[in-house]
Amino acid sequence: VPFKQVENLSHDSLVRRAASLVTDSSSTFLSQVTLALIDAVTEYAKAVHTLIALQRRYLASLGKLSPAEEDAIWQVIISQRAEVNHRQDELKRFELTWATSVRLCETAAEAAYISGAENASIMIRTNIQLAQSQVEEAQKLSLDAEKKLAETKVMEVERMTQHAASLESNNDEEIPDAYLRED
Amino acid sequence: VPFKQVENLSHDSLVRRAASLVTDSSSTFLSQVTLALIDAVTEYAKAVHTLIALQRRYLASLGKLSPAEEDAIWQVIISQRAEVNHRQDELKRFELTWATSVRLCETAAEAAYISGAENASIMIRTNIQLAQSQVEEAQKLSLDAEKKLAETKVMEVERMTQHAASLESNNDEEIPDAYLRED
Repeated sequence: VPFKQVENLSHDSLVRRAASLVTDSSSTFLSQVTLALIDAVTEYAKAVHTLIALQRRYLASLGKLSPAEEDAIWQVIISQRAEVNHRQDELKRFELTWATSVRLCETAAEAAYISGAENASIMIRTNIQLAQSQVEEAQKLSLDAEKKLAETKVMEVERMTQHAASLESNNDEEIPDAYLRED
Repeated sequence: VPFKQVENLSHDSLVRRAASLVTDSSSTFLSQVTLALIDAVTEYAKAVHTLIALQRRYLASLGKLSPAEEDAIWQVIISQRAEVNHRQDELKRFELTWATSVRLCETAAEAAYISGAENASIMIRTNIQLAQSQVEEAQKLSLDAEKKLAETKVMEVERMTQHAASLESNNDEEIPDAYLRED
Protein backbone atom coordinates (compact mmCIF):
# COMPACT_ATOMS: atom_id res chain seq x y z
CA VAL A 1 0.00 0.00 0.00
CA PRO A 2 1.98 3.00 -1.21
CA PHE A 3 0.14 5.60 0.95
CA LYS A 4 0.83 3.60 4.10
CA GLN A 5 4.49 3.36 3.17
CA VAL A 6 4.82 7.12 2.71
CA GLU A 7 3.18 7.65 6.11
CA ASN A 8 5.65 5.23 7.71
CA LEU A 9 8.59 7.04 6.18
CA SER A 10 7.46 10.61 6.85
CA HIS A 11 9.81 12.70 8.95
CA ASP A 12 6.98 13.48 11.34
CA SER A 13 6.26 9.84 12.10
CA LEU A 14 9.97 8.96 12.43
CA VAL A 15 10.53 11.89 14.77
CA ARG A 16 7.44 10.94 16.77
CA ARG A 17 8.65 7.35 17.17
CA ALA A 18 12.13 8.47 18.17
CA ALA A 19 10.56 10.80 20.75
CA SER A 20 8.61 7.85 22.21
CA LEU A 21 11.84 5.86 22.56
CA VAL A 22 13.33 8.80 24.45
CA THR A 23 10.39 8.97 26.87
CA ASP A 24 10.62 5.17 27.36
CA SER A 25 14.32 5.19 28.17
CA SER A 26 14.03 8.36 30.28
CA SER A 27 11.23 6.73 32.29
CA THR A 28 13.40 3.65 32.82
CA PHE A 29 16.28 5.85 33.93
CA LEU A 30 14.02 7.74 36.34
CA SER A 31 12.74 4.41 37.76
CA GLN A 32 16.26 3.08 38.33
CA VAL A 33 17.40 6.30 39.99
CA THR A 34 14.22 6.45 42.11
CA LEU A 35 14.79 2.86 43.33
CA ALA A 36 18.42 3.68 44.07
CA LEU A 37 17.43 6.85 45.93
CA ILE A 38 14.74 5.08 47.98
CA ASP A 39 17.27 2.36 48.90
CA ALA A 40 19.83 5.03 49.82
CA VAL A 41 17.28 6.85 52.01
CA THR A 42 16.32 3.56 53.70
CA GLU A 43 19.94 2.58 54.33
CA TYR A 44 20.74 6.04 55.68
CA ALA A 45 17.71 6.00 58.01
CA LYS A 46 18.66 2.49 59.17
CA ALA A 47 22.23 3.61 59.92
CA VAL A 48 20.97 6.64 61.87
CA HIS A 49 18.60 4.45 63.92
CA THR A 50 21.45 2.07 64.75
CA LEU A 51 23.57 5.04 65.87
CA ILE A 52 20.69 6.30 68.02
CA ALA A 53 20.29 2.86 69.66
CA LEU A 54 24.02 2.68 70.40
CA GLN A 55 24.10 6.18 71.87
CA ARG A 56 21.03 5.51 74.04
CA ARG A 57 22.49 2.22 75.28
CA TYR A 58 25.71 4.06 76.18
CA LEU A 59 23.81 6.83 78.00
CA ALA A 60 21.69 4.30 79.88
CA SER A 61 24.81 2.54 81.15
CA LEU A 62 26.76 5.71 82.03
CA GLY A 63 28.74 5.22 85.25
CA LYS A 64 28.09 1.46 85.21
CA LEU A 65 30.86 0.61 82.74
CA SER A 66 34.55 -0.07 83.23
CA PRO A 67 36.91 2.18 81.22
CA ALA A 68 37.60 -0.79 78.86
CA GLU A 69 33.87 -1.36 78.27
CA GLU A 70 33.38 2.37 77.71
CA ASP A 71 36.24 2.40 75.17
CA ALA A 72 34.73 -0.60 73.35
CA ILE A 73 31.28 1.01 73.03
CA TRP A 74 32.86 4.28 71.87
CA GLN A 75 34.73 2.43 69.13
CA VAL A 76 31.39 1.02 67.93
CA ILE A 77 29.71 4.45 68.09
CA ILE A 78 32.56 6.10 66.14
CA SER A 79 32.48 3.46 63.40
CA GLN A 80 28.66 3.79 63.23
CA ARG A 81 29.03 7.57 62.82
CA ALA A 82 31.37 6.90 59.88
CA GLU A 83 28.73 4.55 58.44
CA VAL A 84 26.07 7.29 58.81
CA ASN A 85 28.33 9.78 56.99
CA HIS A 86 29.01 7.27 54.23
CA ARG A 87 25.26 6.58 53.80
CA GLN A 88 24.56 10.31 53.78
CA ASP A 89 27.11 10.85 50.99
CA GLU A 90 25.47 8.05 48.97
CA LEU A 91 22.07 9.61 49.61
CA LYS A 92 23.22 13.07 48.47
CA ARG A 93 24.80 11.56 45.36
CA PHE A 94 21.55 9.81 44.38
CA GLU A 95 19.50 12.90 45.25
CA LEU A 96 21.58 14.85 42.74
CA THR A 97 21.21 12.14 40.08
CA TRP A 98 17.49 11.95 40.81
CA ALA A 99 17.00 15.70 40.37
CA THR A 100 18.81 15.44 37.02
CA SER A 101 16.67 12.47 35.98
CA VAL A 102 13.47 14.41 36.76
CA ARG A 103 14.76 17.34 34.70
CA LEU A 104 15.64 14.92 31.89
CA CYS A 105 12.14 13.44 31.94
CA GLU A 106 10.57 16.90 31.86
CA THR A 107 12.65 17.76 28.78
CA ALA A 108 11.73 14.39 27.22
CA ALA A 109 8.03 15.13 27.90
CA GLU A 110 8.44 18.49 26.17
CA ALA A 111 10.27 16.91 23.22
CA ALA A 112 7.55 14.26 22.87
CA TYR A 113 4.80 16.87 23.01
CA ILE A 114 6.45 19.11 20.41
CA SER A 115 6.98 16.05 18.18
CA GLY A 116 3.29 15.16 18.29
CA ALA A 117 3.76 12.18 20.63
CA GLU A 118 1.18 13.52 23.11
CA ASN A 119 0.47 10.15 24.75
CA ALA A 120 4.16 9.52 25.41
CA SER A 121 4.34 13.02 26.88
CA ILE A 122 1.38 12.39 29.21
CA MET A 123 2.74 8.98 30.25
CA ILE A 124 6.14 10.29 31.25
CA ARG A 125 4.58 13.19 33.18
CA THR A 126 2.55 10.62 35.13
CA ASN A 127 5.76 8.69 35.83
CA ILE A 128 7.46 11.86 37.10
CA GLN A 129 4.60 12.49 39.53
CA LEU A 130 4.67 8.87 40.71
CA ALA A 131 8.43 9.02 41.30
CA GLN A 132 8.08 12.33 43.14
CA SER A 133 5.46 10.97 45.55
CA GLN A 134 7.51 7.78 46.13
CA VAL A 135 10.60 9.82 46.94
CA GLU A 136 8.67 12.21 49.21
CA GLU A 137 7.30 9.19 51.11
CA ALA A 138 10.80 7.71 51.50
CA GLN A 139 12.29 11.02 52.60
CA LYS A 140 9.95 10.98 55.62
CA LEU A 141 12.05 8.02 56.88
CA SER A 142 15.26 10.03 56.86
CA LEU A 143 13.59 13.16 58.29
CA ASP A 144 12.15 11.04 61.10
CA ALA A 145 15.56 9.44 61.76
CA GLU A 146 17.28 12.85 61.82
CA LYS A 147 14.65 14.21 64.23
CA LYS A 148 15.24 11.25 66.60
CA LEU A 149 19.01 11.76 66.32
CA ALA A 150 18.60 15.42 67.34
CA GLU A 151 16.47 14.35 70.33
CA THR A 152 19.17 11.87 71.35
CA LYS A 153 21.75 14.66 71.18
CA VAL A 154 19.66 16.73 73.60
CA MET A 155 19.31 13.68 75.87
CA GLU A 156 23.08 13.09 75.62
CA VAL A 157 23.91 16.65 76.74
CA GLU A 158 21.51 16.34 79.71
CA ARG A 159 22.83 12.94 80.83
CA MET A 160 26.46 13.94 80.42
CA THR A 161 25.85 17.09 82.51
CA GLN A 162 24.11 15.02 85.21
CA HIS A 163 26.89 12.43 85.12
CA ALA A 164 29.61 15.08 85.33
CA ALA A 165 27.81 16.71 88.27
CA SER A 166 27.46 13.39 90.10
CA LEU A 167 31.13 12.58 89.42
CA GLU A 168 32.10 15.97 90.85
CA SER A 169 30.03 15.52 94.04
CA ASN A 170 31.46 12.00 94.39
CA ASN A 171 34.93 13.45 93.93
CA ASP A 172 34.19 16.14 96.53
CA GLU A 173 33.37 13.39 99.01
CA GLU A 174 36.28 11.26 97.99
CA ILE A 175 38.95 13.96 97.96
CA PRO A 176 40.92 13.68 101.18
CA ASP A 177 40.76 16.73 103.41
CA ALA A 178 44.54 17.12 103.03
CA TYR A 179 44.12 18.25 99.42
CA LEU A 180 41.70 20.97 100.46
CA ARG A 181 44.00 22.64 102.94
CA GLU A 182 45.80 25.68 101.61
CA ASP A 183 49.09 25.49 103.46
CA VAL B 1 31.06 -15.59 40.40
CA PRO B 2 29.20 -13.89 43.28
CA PHE B 3 31.21 -10.62 43.16
CA LYS B 4 30.46 -10.16 39.48
CA GLN B 5 26.78 -10.76 40.14
CA VAL B 6 26.66 -8.12 42.86
CA GLU B 7 28.39 -5.67 40.52
CA ASN B 8 25.76 -6.37 37.84
CA LEU B 9 22.93 -5.74 40.26
CA SER B 10 24.33 -2.65 41.99
CA HIS B 11 22.22 0.47 41.76
CA ASP B 12 25.18 2.34 40.30
CA SER B 13 25.62 -0.05 37.40
CA LEU B 14 21.86 -0.22 36.70
CA VAL B 15 21.62 3.58 36.74
CA ARG B 16 24.69 3.82 34.49
CA ARG B 17 23.17 1.40 31.96
CA ALA B 18 19.84 3.19 32.00
CA ALA B 19 21.68 6.47 31.40
CA SER B 20 23.41 4.95 28.36
CA LEU B 21 20.03 3.90 26.94
CA VAL B 22 18.87 7.49 27.36
CA THR B 23 21.87 8.89 25.49
CA ASP B 24 21.34 6.29 22.74
CA SER B 25 17.68 7.14 22.23
CA SER B 26 18.31 10.88 22.56
CA SER B 27 21.00 10.64 19.89
CA THR B 28 18.60 8.78 17.60
CA PHE B 29 15.95 11.43 18.23
CA LEU B 30 18.44 14.20 17.46
CA SER B 31 19.49 12.41 14.23
CA GLN B 32 15.88 12.04 13.06
CA VAL B 33 15.06 15.67 13.82
CA THR B 34 18.31 16.83 12.17
CA LEU B 35 17.48 14.89 9.00
CA ALA B 36 13.94 16.30 9.04
CA LEU B 37 15.25 19.83 9.55
CA ILE B 38 17.84 19.53 6.76
CA ASP B 39 15.12 18.22 4.41
CA ALA B 40 12.82 21.07 5.45
CA VAL B 41 15.59 23.63 4.79
CA THR B 42 16.31 22.06 1.39
CA GLU B 43 12.63 22.01 0.40
CA TYR B 44 12.17 25.60 1.55
CA ALA B 45 15.24 26.79 -0.39
CA LYS B 46 14.03 24.89 -3.47
CA ALA B 47 10.58 26.53 -3.22
CA VAL B 48 12.16 29.98 -2.87
CA HIS B 49 14.39 29.37 -5.92
CA THR B 50 11.37 28.29 -7.97
CA LEU B 51 9.55 31.48 -6.89
CA ILE B 52 12.59 33.57 -7.86
CA ALA B 53 12.74 31.89 -11.31
CA LEU B 54 9.02 32.54 -11.89
CA GLN B 55 9.27 36.18 -10.83
CA ARG B 56 12.35 36.76 -13.02
CA ARG B 57 10.64 35.13 -15.99
CA TYR B 58 7.63 37.39 -15.43
CA LEU B 59 9.79 40.50 -15.15
CA ALA B 60 11.74 39.58 -18.29
CA SER B 61 8.50 39.27 -20.26
CA LEU B 62 6.87 42.43 -18.90
CA GLY B 63 4.96 44.24 -21.64
CA LYS B 64 5.29 41.26 -24.00
CA LEU B 65 2.36 39.28 -22.57
CA SER B 66 -1.34 39.36 -23.26
CA PRO B 67 -3.56 40.03 -20.19
CA ALA B 68 -4.56 36.31 -20.21
CA GLU B 69 -0.92 35.19 -20.25
CA GLU B 70 -0.13 37.68 -17.49
CA ASP B 71 -3.03 36.32 -15.40
CA ALA B 72 -1.83 32.76 -15.91
CA ILE B 73 1.73 33.52 -14.79
CA TRP B 74 0.40 35.45 -11.77
CA GLN B 75 -1.70 32.44 -10.74
CA VAL B 76 1.47 30.33 -10.79
CA ILE B 77 3.44 32.93 -8.81
CA ILE B 78 0.68 33.20 -6.18
CA SER B 79 0.47 29.45 -5.71
CA GLN B 80 4.28 29.27 -5.49
CA ARG B 81 4.23 31.96 -2.79
CA ALA B 82 1.76 29.80 -0.83
CA GLU B 83 4.15 26.87 -1.30
CA VAL B 84 7.04 28.99 0.06
CA ASN B 85 4.94 29.97 3.11
CA HIS B 86 3.99 26.36 3.70
CA ARG B 87 7.64 25.24 3.48
CA GLN B 88 8.67 28.04 5.83
CA ASP B 89 6.09 26.92 8.43
CA GLU B 90 7.43 23.37 8.18
CA LEU B 91 10.96 24.68 8.57
CA LYS B 92 10.08 26.73 11.66
CA ARG B 93 8.29 23.74 13.18
CA PHE B 94 11.35 21.50 12.75
CA GLU B 95 13.68 24.27 13.95
CA LEU B 96 11.70 24.38 17.20
CA THR B 97 11.76 20.58 17.54
CA TRP B 98 15.47 20.57 16.74
CA ALA B 99 16.27 23.17 19.43
CA THR B 100 14.33 21.01 21.91
CA SER B 101 16.20 17.87 20.79
CA VAL B 102 19.57 19.59 21.32
CA ARG B 103 18.46 20.67 24.80
CA LEU B 104 17.30 17.11 25.49
CA CYS B 105 20.67 15.69 24.40
CA GLU B 106 22.53 18.18 26.60
CA THR B 107 20.43 17.09 29.60
CA ALA B 108 21.02 13.43 28.67
CA ALA B 109 24.78 14.10 28.49
CA GLU B 110 24.62 15.65 31.95
CA ALA B 111 22.56 12.74 33.32
CA ALA B 112 25.04 10.23 31.85
CA TYR B 113 28.00 12.11 33.29
CA ILE B 114 26.48 12.36 36.78
CA SER B 115 25.61 8.63 36.61
CA GLY B 116 29.22 7.70 35.86
CA ALA B 117 28.58 6.89 32.17
CA GLU B 118 31.33 9.27 31.01
CA ASN B 119 31.79 7.63 27.60
CA ALA B 120 28.09 7.88 26.78
CA SER B 121 28.24 11.52 27.84
CA ILE B 122 31.21 12.24 25.56
CA MET B 123 29.60 10.37 22.64
CA ILE B 124 26.35 12.30 22.79
CA ARG B 125 28.21 15.62 23.05
CA THR B 126 30.08 14.69 19.87
CA ASN B 127 26.73 13.91 18.21
CA ILE B 128 25.35 17.30 19.27
CA GLN B 129 28.32 19.08 17.68
CA LEU B 130 27.98 17.03 14.50
CA ALA B 131 24.27 17.84 14.24
CA GLN B 132 24.95 21.52 14.87
CA SER B 133 27.53 21.76 12.08
CA GLN B 134 25.23 19.83 9.67
CA VAL B 135 22.34 22.18 10.41
CA GLU B 136 24.53 25.30 10.09
CA GLU B 137 25.69 24.03 6.69
CA ALA B 138 22.10 23.43 5.56
CA GLN B 139 20.92 26.80 6.83
CA LYS B 140 23.33 28.46 4.38
CA LEU B 141 21.02 27.17 1.62
CA SER B 142 18.00 28.99 2.98
CA LEU B 143 19.97 32.13 3.80
CA ASP B 144 21.30 32.14 0.22
CA ALA B 145 17.79 31.62 -1.18
CA GLU B 146 16.37 34.42 0.98
CA LYS B 147 19.17 36.77 -0.14
CA LYS B 148 18.40 36.02 -3.81
CA LEU B 149 14.68 36.55 -3.15
CA ALA B 150 15.42 39.98 -1.64
CA GLU B 151 17.54 40.85 -4.70
CA THR B 152 14.67 39.81 -6.98
CA LYS B 153 12.33 42.04 -4.98
CA VAL B 154 14.63 45.02 -5.62
CA MET B 155 14.78 44.07 -9.30
CA GLU B 156 10.98 43.76 -9.38
CA VAL B 157 10.47 47.26 -7.97
CA GLU B 158 12.92 48.72 -10.55
CA ARG B 159 11.35 46.90 -13.51
CA MET B 160 7.79 47.69 -12.43
CA THR B 161 8.71 51.37 -12.08
CA GLN B 162 10.34 51.36 -15.53
CA HIS B 163 7.37 49.53 -16.98
CA ALA B 164 4.86 51.91 -15.38
CA ALA B 165 6.87 54.87 -16.71
CA SER B 166 6.98 53.42 -20.23
CA LEU B 167 3.25 52.64 -20.05
CA GLU B 168 2.58 56.21 -19.02
CA SER B 169 4.65 57.70 -21.83
CA ASN B 170 2.96 55.26 -24.27
CA ASN B 171 -0.40 56.27 -22.85
CA ASP B 172 0.51 59.92 -23.25
CA GLU B 173 1.07 59.26 -26.93
CA GLU B 174 -1.98 57.07 -27.26
CA ILE B 175 -4.41 59.26 -25.38
CA PRO B 176 -6.42 61.14 -28.01
CA ASP B 177 -5.97 64.91 -27.91
CA ALA B 178 -9.70 65.17 -27.18
CA TYR B 179 -9.14 63.89 -23.65
CA LEU B 180 -6.51 66.50 -22.92
CA ARG B 181 -8.63 69.45 -23.85
CA GLU B 182 -10.18 71.22 -20.90
CA ASP B 183 -13.43 72.38 -22.41
